[in-house]
Amino acid sequence: VSRLRSPENLTLSHRLVLGGDLLGTGLFAFEGAGLAAGSGLDLFGIAVIAVVTALGGGMVRDVLIGAVPAMALCDLRYGGVALLGAAAALAWHAGLGTLPDALLLAPDAIGLGVFAMTGTEKALAYNIRPTAAPILGTLTAVGGGVLRDILLNTVPSVLRVDIYATAALAGSILLVLLRRAGVPNTVAALLGGAACVALRVLSAHEGWHLPEAP
Amino acid sequence: VSRLRSPENLTLSHRLVLGGDLLGTGLFAFEGAGLAAGSGLDLFGIAVIAVVTALGGGMVRDVLIGAVPAMALCDLRYGGVALLGAAAALAWHAGLGTLPDALLLAPDAIGLGVFAMTGTEKALAYNIRPTAAPILGTLTAVGGGVLRDILLNTVPSVLRVDIYATAALAGSILLVLLRRAGVPNTVAALLGGAACVALRVLSAHEGWHLPEAP
Amino acid sequence: VSRLRSPENLTLSHRLVLGGDLLGTGLFAFEGAGLAAGSGLDLFGIAVIAVVTALGGGMVRDVLIGAVPAMALCDLRYGGVALLGAAAALAWHAGLGTLPDALLLAPDAIGLGVFAMTGTEKALAYNIRPTAAPILGTLTAVGGGVLRDILLNTVPSVLRVDIYATAALAGSILLVLLRRAGVPNTVAALLGGAACVALRVLSAHEGWHLPEAP
Repeated sequence: VSRLRSPENLTLSHRLVLGGDLLGTGLFAFEGAGLAAGSGLDLFGIAVIAVVTALGGGMVRDVLIGAVPAMALCDLRYGGVALLGAAAALAWHAGLGTLPDALLLAPDAIGLGVFAMTGTEKALAYNIRPTAAPILGTLTAVGGGVLRDILLNTVPSVLRVDIYATAALAGSILLVLLRRAGVPNTVAALLGGAACVALRVLSAHEGWHLPEAP
Repeated sequence: VSRLRSPENLTLSHRLVLGGDLLGTGLFAFEGAGLAAGSGLDLFGIAVIAVVTALGGGMVRDVLIGAVPAMALCDLRYGGVALLGAAAALAWHAGLGTLPDALLLAPDAIGLGVFAMTGTEKALAYNIRPTAAPILGTLTAVGGGVLRDILLNTVPSVLRVDIYATAALAGSILLVLLRRAGVPNTVAALLGGAACVALRVLSAHEGWHLPEAP
Repeated sequence: VSRLRSPENLTLSHRLVLGGDLLGTGLFAFEGAGLAAGSGLDLFGIAVIAVVTALGGGMVRDVLIGAVPAMALCDLRYGGVALLGAAAALAWHAGLGTLPDALLLAPDAIGLGVFAMTGTEKALAYNIRPTAAPILGTLTAVGGGVLRDILLNTVPSVLRVDIYATAALAGSILLVLLRRAGVPNTVAALLGGAACVALRVLSAHEGWHLPEAP
């Protein structure tokens, strides 16, 4: 992790986290607003659900590692991108009707992979141990969805969907292992994120299951 | 925001936040206990719901902006005022029966306005940008009610009631705009809070709605 | 509280908190996994419920008092012990069937007492006032169960079970009073924890109730 502390790497790491966070924010807001639009909430309620889905995971991460004020409060682009993502979903909904499941699955899987990477990266940059950082990556990736489901008063889908948090965890662990093996940060993040997305999409497509309690 | 950093203004701002927080705490605790008293919880459960309603929003605000230990843990008056508010509601309930809706609406609206102002003020005092501070004002105002509703296992009323968080957000934005225009802090907070309360009461009375998703 | 600041006491206090936290973590994870195993979740979901039950209370405590990064993220033993506790519950479940209620009540009561003590101790060590520290002890003790129940979409049992948080609060207050009276930390923690466990087990056995709202 010592490489992280040199300024040029911190800058690269920060830029990766920011870019990834903004991409994931837009995708999750699009997905959250798409889900909420079909549930009879008014425009404000839809915006809240979209923003919570998009920014909730990163806020929980920031609070737990002590990176406060939480990033999404310091950088206007987070909120702006979340509202843009929500507006895009509402425009689609108004023009073309209910979003097809496939169109919700894809941004969700990519958002999952991106947030898993940025969460793990940021945890490492805040000197969280490499063994604990993947937990924070997973929390960043699934936290927004958990908060959204709690607000909508349902059991969080992450506890019901079979390979979801598991995919985020696997990608995060891969990122840490690749960095330890000397792979450059950007390449490691791309490979870890791709592994997460592939695992998530494949498992949804093939109906893979984790074993139940014996 | 630079005016905030001079000691005399910080002191004034701190005093405003403290006084407003205590007023809002008592009002929200009164309302929370009034709601809980009708729901079959024992005295401890009622006290928990009252305290969560009263102090939850401020705690979430403090954790997100890094003002820890959270204010309510450092100043005994917060907990004391919350318990007094709850006791007043229980005394009313015991002597005069179920609290009429109007008597729950008024303290709720005033608590909403007061917390929106103190939340925005405190965020500015912790160098949160003026564009993000109203979000924290809104979160302070509605956070306790959201946590209460999550504990009671219902969809948070803030997502169902039409002009509620919107009123807090409008008042908070007005506060920031007035301060930017050079209006003294106290006057700006009074005007912003009054706008929030008026908007909330009027909309409840007139049955105003936000538009639904197209 | 000034005694806490001398290095030898801090060390003792830290060791007490760590040992107690690990014991409570294992017990709560065992209980959480035992509950979850009967509810049709897959292995990952059971692990999440066990970890949240075991570590959630301490994380909320750490975030509120500003002890971040949260302890459970810095010390691998927390996560390891939680997974061991969950594995033990699953092994029992696989070999001997549903865990008897008595076997869930006992670790739960002991975990409650231990976490109430470590939460109060750690709050004092972070200079939270002796009057507020028992609240943090109670939150540490019941927080994990509250988060678990929120995830499982039920009203938290702490609001329904009669003497539960009350027992944690009573034990935490006793700890503070004994320390103020000059009783050594270890003895005070043992007595406070024993009082909490005894009160919890007795009340469950005798069916004691708190009064309802008048």
